[in-house]
Amino acid sequence: MIPEMPILRATPAIEAIPPMTPFIGPEQLMREGSHARLLRLGANESAFGPSPKAVAAMSAELPHLSWYGDPESFALREALAARFGCSLENVCVGSGIDDLMGLVVRAFIGPGSVALATRGTYPTFAYHVTGFGGGLATVDYRADGFVDVDALIRRTKSLRPSIVYLANPDNPSGTLLERGKVERLFDALPAQTLLLLDEAYADFVEAEAFLGPMIHSQLVRVRTFSKAYGMAGARIGFAITTPRNVATFQKIRLHYGVNRNAQVGAMAALEDDAFVAHVVQEVARGRDDYYSLAASLGLGTIPSHTNFVCIDCGDGRTATALMETLLRRGVFIRKPALPPLEGYVRVTVGTPEERAQFAEHFRAVISG
Amino acid sequence: MIPEMPILRATPAIEAIPPMTPFIGPEQLMREGSHARLLRLGANESAFGPSPKAVAAMSAELPHLSWYGDPESFALREALAARFGCSLENVCVGSGIDDLMGLVVRAFIGPGSVALATRGTYPTFAYHVTGFGGGLATVDYRADGFVDVDALIRRTKSLRPSIVYLANPDNPSGTLLERGKVERLFDALPAQTLLLLDEAYADFVEAEAFLGPMIHSQLVRVRTFSKAYGMAGARIGFAITTPRNVATFQKIRLHYGVNRNAQVGAMAALEDDAFVAHVVQEVARGRDDYYSLAASLGLGTIPSHTNFVCIDCGDGRTATALMETLLRRGVFIRKPALPPLEGYVRVTVGTPEERAQFAEHFRAVISG
Repeated sequence: MIPEMPILRATPAIEAIPPMTPFIGPEQLMREGSHARLLRLGANESAFGPSPKAVAAMSAELPHLSWYGDPESFALREALAARFGCSLENVCVGSGIDDLMGLVVRAFIGPGSVALATRGTYPTFAYHVTGFGGGLATVDYRADGFVDVDALIRRTKSLRPSIVYLANPDNPSGTLLERGKVERLFDALPAQTLLLLDEAYADFVEAEAFLGPMIHSQLVRVRTFSKAYGMAGARIGFAITTPRNVATFQKIRLHYGVNRNAQVGAMAALEDDAFVAHVVQEVARGRDDYYSLAASLGLGTIPSHTNFVCIDCGDGRTATALMETLLRRGVFIRKPALPPLEGYVRVTVGTPEERAQFAEHFRAVISG
Repeated sequence: MIPEMPILRATPAIEAIPPMTPFIGPEQLMREGSHARLLRLGANESAFGPSPKAVAAMSAELPHLSWYGDPESFALREALAARFGCSLENVCVGSGIDDLMGLVVRAFIGPGSVALATRGTYPTFAYHVTGFGGGLATVDYRADGFVDVDALIRRTKSLRPSIVYLANPDNPSGTLLERGKVERLFDALPAQTLLLLDEAYADFVEAEAFLGPMIHSQLVRVRTFSKAYGMAGARIGFAITTPRNVATFQKIRLHYGVNRNAQVGAMAALEDDAFVAHVVQEVARGRDDYYSLAASLGLGTIPSHTNFVCIDCGDGRTATALMETLLRRGVFIRKPALPPLEGYVRVTVGTPEERAQFAEHFRAVISG
């Protein structure tokens, strides 16, 4: 035996974090299954690409990619402020919502802090809480797959967590809490609790369904160009909150972390409302296709306000087997891991052609 | 008076971080000075752009920017492992060196930890140390602008810091510690000290001047596509270390944080050695131009192994005034803030045309 190299230990806090299995990416599934290509319907990526205007702007900028992006993302923050009726001091731009949530958790969660979320919701929030030494308390989804706002409120009042996390619309369920319920949750917050509102899928919902453009020190709303804008690979999103919270993030963010290509693309994308409207319409059609497909096979669905649909396969074992069988056929989907959604598979809306391909595979596997 | 909105306080550790002034970006200087354009020689960005092959690859990928990048950066890590004679388990890809240094500091520095660096070197290391609650000890540069390896070794032995940071070649001095000196520093490390070797400018130096492809738990080397590869705006870099350290970073990194465009561009850039060789040659010519320019004006320079040159203007006040005068003329450069380099200005190598423009402005201001 060759003697082991000496080990340099990380800090006790970091050593204590369990090794984690993040989402396995489609590229790894392709390598493991020797797939030359996959029908890519598992990561809620847009099937409709970025706006052609964004592609043109990014393409024109590529020769300048030797320049860092503007560390202030000034022009983009100005455009976002105009869009959301606030000041650019209310806007923090980051490399996607995962990056921004990391800043929020790092700022407001420390060892001994506790955060509250729905059990089984988008897991990167919990990843950050664990990573920064906090504890995570959870409440369950309702049996119908909706976020249980009453349970969140009760638990918030008793636990007084540092952060309450709400994805709205929710991932992986696709459900929406209407404005009145979110406001009820917000109104119930103790004075030292922050509501982190993950609105990654907000662009698929009518604006009035949402909390208004409320700027408050206890509210951080995060949004992204990854979903309806079709720019997940560009890594750009933003947070809207008070100037003081933005100044707090300013103390810890990577000032030169947002790539120039994404800044330029996001600016152009924001100016192409017609494209986003088209995507939203196509996605609504796609959800209807999936509802019909499921119904024709006698399977239930959860009404979705996102670019994906959860289809009820009965139980966790069946849903997992279905997902694995589809993967062997070259179809990449994902599924919620935890009750009450463990019996569902989650399918991203594809192009009409991709939806037809999915329907063919899905029917064959269900019938097979 | 309208009553102040209630303030939600961040954790005591985050509240304790002083508000910071990062590098002011050239875009902000343009806004403040109402410059339509700047001669952009202040941020050590490449004047020679990305490889045309990288531009072509990124351009072809733009329609797929609705897809996340591969969270494992598998293909790129494989290519880097082949290039550096290691395994892909030795490679961690991040959104540039700033991102990777954040992971290293977060992993190895906690409250009560101390890190050691040269006073006045690349400030983002100190930014991360402060941000994660550590203390920073420093040693001074030698009077000639070189990193004082003997002082670093002495202080390392007495202080037993968690991390020793060495930028080699150094920024902002541009100086290089030859391989024997770096090895001497490495050999002097106590068992629980990590050497963080920031090799952002390594591509401008002959390979044999460097520490060999040594994989060790007490060594993390970070490199970037931002400098010689001309992809600063794409945000991509990598760390080389042991699989255990890579697994530690895996616990805390943003798994989907590296943008797809950068991954694709970096792969193509790695395959275009001829382009990088051309850039390195042009940069060497540019340094010579700056040495000659300074000499013709009776000013000293520090021998540089990077894409920038420090020119001696005598004292800090003169250098600052010179920088400000140049900015009013539309010329963006930067200068070291701290002794013994505070009397220098730092000028990035531009294209031959940009160098000629700089020379004209510089002569006029010095003579004026």
